[in-house]
Amino acid sequence: MSVTVPEGFAAQGVAAGLKSTGLADLAVVVNLGVNPVGAAVFTSNRAKANPILWSEQAIRSGQVRAIVLNSGGANCFTGEFGYETSVLTAKLAAGELGVDPNQIQVCSTGLIGEGGPAFREAILHALPGALATAHEDGGEAAARAIMTTDTRPKMAAYRGEGWSIGGMAKGAGMLAPGLATMLVVLTTDVGLDPIGARRALRSATAQTFDHLDSDGCMSTNDQVTLLSSGMSAAQPSEEEFTAALTEVCRDLALQLLDDAEGASHNITIRVVGAVSESDALEVGRSVARNNLFKAAIFGNDPNWGRVLAAIGTTRAAFDPYEVDVWMNGVRVCHHGGPDQPRDQVDLSGRNTEVLIDLQTGAAEGTIWTNDLTHDYVHENSAYSS
Amino acid sequence: MSVTVPEGFAAQGVAAGLKSTGLADLAVVVNLGVNPVGAAVFTSNRAKANPILWSEQAIRSGQVRAIVLNSGGANCFTGEFGYETSVLTAKLAAGELGVDPNQIQVCSTGLIGEGGPAFREAILHALPGALATAHEDGGEAAARAIMTTDTRPKMAAYRGEGWSIGGMAKGAGMLAPGLATMLVVLTTDVGLDPIGARRALRSATAQTFDHLDSDGCMSTNDQVTLLSSGMSAAQPSEEEFTAALTEVCRDLALQLLDDAEGASHNITIRVVGAVSESDALEVGRSVARNNLFKAAIFGNDPNWGRVLAAIGTTRAAFDPYEVDVWMNGVRVCHHGGPDQPRDQVDLSGRNTEVLIDLQTGAAEGTIWTNDLTHDYVHENSAYSS
Repeated sequence: MSVTVPEGFAAQGVAAGLKSTGLADLAVVVNLGVNPVGAAVFTSNRAKANPILWSEQAIRSGQVRAIVLNSGGANCFTGEFGYETSVLTAKLAAGELGVDPNQIQVCSTGLIGEGGPAFREAILHALPGALATAHEDGGEAAARAIMTTDTRPKMAAYRGEGWSIGGMAKGAGMLAPGLATMLVVLTTDVGLDPIGARRALRSATAQTFDHLDSDGCMSTNDQVTLLSSGMSAAQPSEEEFTAALTEVCRDLALQLLDDAEGASHNITIRVVGAVSESDALEVGRSVARNNLFKAAIFGNDPNWGRVLAAIGTTRAAFDPYEVDVWMNGVRVCHHGGPDQPRDQVDLSGRNTEVLIDLQTGAAEGTIWTNDLTHDYVHENSAYSS
Repeated sequence: MSVTVPEGFAAQGVAAGLKSTGLADLAVVVNLGVNPVGAAVFTSNRAKANPILWSEQAIRSGQVRAIVLNSGGANCFTGEFGYETSVLTAKLAAGELGVDPNQIQVCSTGLIGEGGPAFREAILHALPGALATAHEDGGEAAARAIMTTDTRPKMAAYRGEGWSIGGMAKGAGMLAPGLATMLVVLTTDVGLDPIGARRALRSATAQTFDHLDSDGCMSTNDQVTLLSSGMSAAQPSEEEFTAALTEVCRDLALQLLDDAEGASHNITIRVVGAVSESDALEVGRSVARNNLFKAAIFGNDPNWGRVLAAIGTTRAAFDPYEVDVWMNGVRVCHHGGPDQPRDQVDLSGRNTEVLIDLQTGAAEGTIWTNDLTHDYVHENSAYSS
């Protein structure tokens, strides 16, 4: 159930001293395959962290021998010095492994603005040991080392006939779409070429992480990376592989949703009857980003009026007096008016299903989000202080 | 300091029984002028409440003899019955005053979905008495009757040479732009024609209420209405009048900001060095809507990284490594890197100034917002239950 499930991967997580708690904060995943193919998608935030700037150009090689990930500092907006730190990290790992630096991906997570001399020194000091001790059961140690406010490590795996996919993820706040979200590493022993790897990865993330919008805030550091070792002789079709990769990504996305900072509800917003998928997703996202709706769900209040008010801000095709809304199976709004009484809706569980029928077409789309809670406010008002 | 400051207006606020607290919940403002000119701007939410549907068509007359406003129920998504209630309200007021129903504006605020038979009956029963007892010192009573979660009435006035403008407003949540926001009534004794009234009102709201974005949530019911009695002989220039109207609107907008639900900080986000005002406003709004930034300010944390992360999601012209950020006068970020230490910033007061210099041009824009607090979550998770 981790990145070391597929053949040909070694991983490790160590404490480099970046976290004041002394917990593990530096992870490596090494691709032992003869042809270490890799692909990645990156945050679409235009304010990009230094490791993103490094990794975006390095991935053009189509090869990823190893990925180095740290928690305890985002190395974002840390100037030239911070960028050099990412380059030095890649060069050090490349030297240890005897490969070109462009085969090294670098990811960081933590507070923006953190990444000074002590940060650099800690990483460069601990990295050789992490690489030297990486082993084929190290997936969980790596998953733990990339945690920040996560309460548990996130891992997933898919086992095919003679091949497999493994994955790990971190991320508990700043979850929002725009291609990649969070730090995610996916591994497979299936032999892929760089173009096929990229195509499969883009397809899988577009259907999973891109539909996850916990708090509407897009990070500067997020990256999803796929590593292929080619150690399996099996050759699943591209369709079969992409479907399995999508399943692993969905598993990880839902683990992120379930561990989102301070959340007390996982909310699935399914929009049907739309004229297009993009209309459905725009409507779903407008509801997912509406603080009044999110606070109502925290209060176990099936406040469908706030759903309609959010839909009204979109450009989607709909008539407000045709829309139906269900909450956990109860139709609370029919043709834009009150339907079943609010007290028939039970929102006391963690999982909340909101179904919106726009009654204008046959397309649909789903967005996953969380509620807005006291604990979200608390965690995010105290994070850096 | 209210809508009855200008000559030619009578107002009243009474308890119609819409609020379970028994507090005043029905307000009227009557224009006593010979030529009762009016103009209005409405929410741009496509999910519009019934009173908005009525008022939008009625305002085409260019005349407003009276405006009837209720709290204790939004009359939104209450079906045909709800729309008829707005029409019957206008017709009853018109009958009492001996005018055409299209000279009556109707506004409602409260919970969406509330507006059944009891609601209609309460309004129609209390309305004649409210109109009959409206008087020239009734501005404060009217301002109190439109309060929902507001903790205090909002009133403002401007006194020119022989002419004046008065105003009142309600609104404490669901504050967001898109033309009109909240319920606002503005009165003047200056004689205006409908087109001039509309032009002045649009100009004033565009520079004030449109820059107020407390929680990013746009209401279904919001309306700003200007009534002109023409009882003053003074003829200020259009420029002078518009400037005064803008001042009254700014005063009311800042009162709304100061009383926003659960807020502990009033945040002014001023963006300078932009290539256009629209770029500046897009950047300001992206920061104002970032829950992580808003929670940080609640925690008195000058987390400029979240400011840059928010800017990065816009399409504005900027280079992240040129941006400067000040908080309460301290430059915490210079050219996209850390500058003065965080502990030099004092965010303990209510007013917070964030200044962002994009360093790409000479345009600027300001957005007013609030922080994200425990009390905001509490008030909005418990509102309808």
